Amino acid sequence: MSRLVECVPNVSEGRRGDVIDRMADAIRGVDGVRLLDRTSDIDHNRSVFTYAGEPEPVMQATHALVDLAFDEVDMRTHKGEHPRLGAVDVVPFVPLAGVTMDECVALAHRFGREVAARHDVPVYFYAKAAMRPERVRLPDIRQPQYEGLGALIDTTHAPDLGPRRVHPSAGAIVVGARPFLIAFNIELASTDLRLAQRIAKEIRESSGGLPAIQAKGFMLTDPPRAQVSMNLLDFTQTSLARVWREVESRANAAGVEVKRGELIGLIPLDAALQVAAEALRLEGFTRDRVIETHFLE
Amino acid sequence: MSRLVECVPNVSEGRRGDVIDRMADAIRGVDGVRLLDRTSDIDHNRSVFTYAGEPEPVMQATHALVDLAFDEVDMRTHKGEHPRLGAVDVVPFVPLAGVTMDECVALAHRFGREVAARHDVPVYFYAKAAMRPERVRLPDIRQPQYEGLGALIDTTHAPDLGPRRVHPSAGAIVVGARPFLIAFNIELASTDLRLAQRIAKEIRESSGGLPAIQAKGFMLTDPPRAQVSMNLLDFTQTSLARVWREVESRANAAGVEVKRGELIGLIPLDAALQVAAEALRLEGFTRDRVIETHFLE
Repeated sequence: MSRLVECVPNVSEGRRGDVIDRMADAIRGVDGVRLLDRTSDIDHNRSVFTYAGEPEPVMQATHALVDLAFDEVDMRTHKGEHPRLGAVDVVPFVPLAGVTMDECVALAHRFGREVAARHDVPVYFYAKAAMRPERVRLPDIRQPQYEGLGALIDTTHAPDLGPRRVHPSAGAIVVGARPFLIAFNIELASTDLRLAQRIAKEIRESSGGLPAIQAKGFMLTDPPRAQVSMNLLDFTQTSLARVWREVESRANAAGVEVKRGELIGLIPLDAALQVAAEALRLEGFTRDRVIETHFLE
Repeated sequence: MSRLVECVPNVSEGRRGDVIDRMADAIRGVDGVRLLDRTSDIDHNRSVFTYAGEPEPVMQATHALVDLAFDEVDMRTHKGEHPRLGAVDVVPFVPLAGVTMDECVALAHRFGREVAARHDVPVYFYAKAAMRPERVRLPDIRQPQYEGLGALIDTTHAPDLGPRRVHPSAGAIVVGARPFLIAFNIELASTDLRLAQRIAKEIRESSGGLPAIQAKGFMLTDPPRAQVSMNLLDFTQTSLARVWREVESRANAAGVEVKRGELIGLIPLDAALQVAAEALRLEGFTRDRVIETHFLE
């Protein structure tokens, strides 16, 4: 059965369609890699590529993308609203199936070493691959941005690998490993925004709620209805089923029904099977009990 | 993405381990076919092979199995408790993914034609592939058994294809198409066998309950607890989630909790995703939203 890793590089180019197309082609050109999603934002002047495959082809595709981006993007002339340090701003490796987080950390470290050697660029490690506690959070690393990095690179922002010198055209690169992030929204059969906000506050980790959950209450329009919008930062800590139950019970206690769930983008099979296993109270319901998993590449 | 068909032939040999091993090898020997399960019963003197793959490799594997079984099994000396007509007693084709029931009916009819021509054996079509209403149910076709078939083959049991003459060593073969069958049990937190039997009676199709559901109440031992044991004959008609809800609400109404669910064997991805989609009230949650489906062979 396959071992699957996802990689979600953010590249500082969101305007030149032909260049972005060639970046997508460079990823797709590697055998065994599937490009699952690509989004570009003109205001941010930034593109995000989501692809997956066995670890080695994913490494190869990521090198191909970095090679092309370093040829095409010049940070000296780059403008965009989103904070960034370099031409390839951040490269997270994400375990999907049959691969541990430790293996993804090892992949990130290896990729960082290879990129530093190949392009003579400063490398920072973040999230699970961070080498110092103050580099776990991406915004902390990215705070000076490309323009301010040179002034700090000898002191607070000394790179984990590579030269203590900003690469003139490519800036710096942040490489890491993190769990799969699931964006999941629950719509309430109500226009009570305050209820959605209260539920969000009660369930999010930052105010003492569920582990690895970010949540916010929103008002949707046309028709107006309240929504609890969530990120599951690690579905092995808090599952979709758990989040559903916690939101539903709080809504019901306020006399409000939950209307529907909404998943943004793709999710890993294990996250879906977890929901089925919990709904049917199945013990030992692992992915090999699903026929199709025996036909994975 | 792959198109997957399952085939579950029942062969009249359950005692000679070396012969059964060679049958399994014949199936596994076909590129693109996965043998998912094999079970043999000494008293029944019968083996069941479960395998899947794209339609063409599955056809090829089934021919390889029939060729070997026809060489090895002699119905003139076969004894066993389970009713049977021939060396390869029944060959059902089952749509798993990306394949319709109509396509499986066409596969069954083609396979029947090919087997009749290749082995000069009488062929009966059953279930969705039946050509006459009285041949939908397998027990009706199999009723005379191998020993009694010769007396009826010119009248009520004229084959749908092939000679009106029982094959001396191989008997006859029944070929068909049917939906995937899911065996699913729900354990009650109770020793009330009558409650399990009442719930089973209320939900099974034969007493006016849910479509395509068979159900029976059982008593399990060590520790004693009551169980509702079900077959879902077509999960697109009645889902696992629906069955769970119907059993749970009836148990709860009697003051009894449901303890756990138990799935026997493997299930198709779509059956699991259906449960997740229902639990999270997701609209349009199709299999392509699961990352791994993009890596199917």
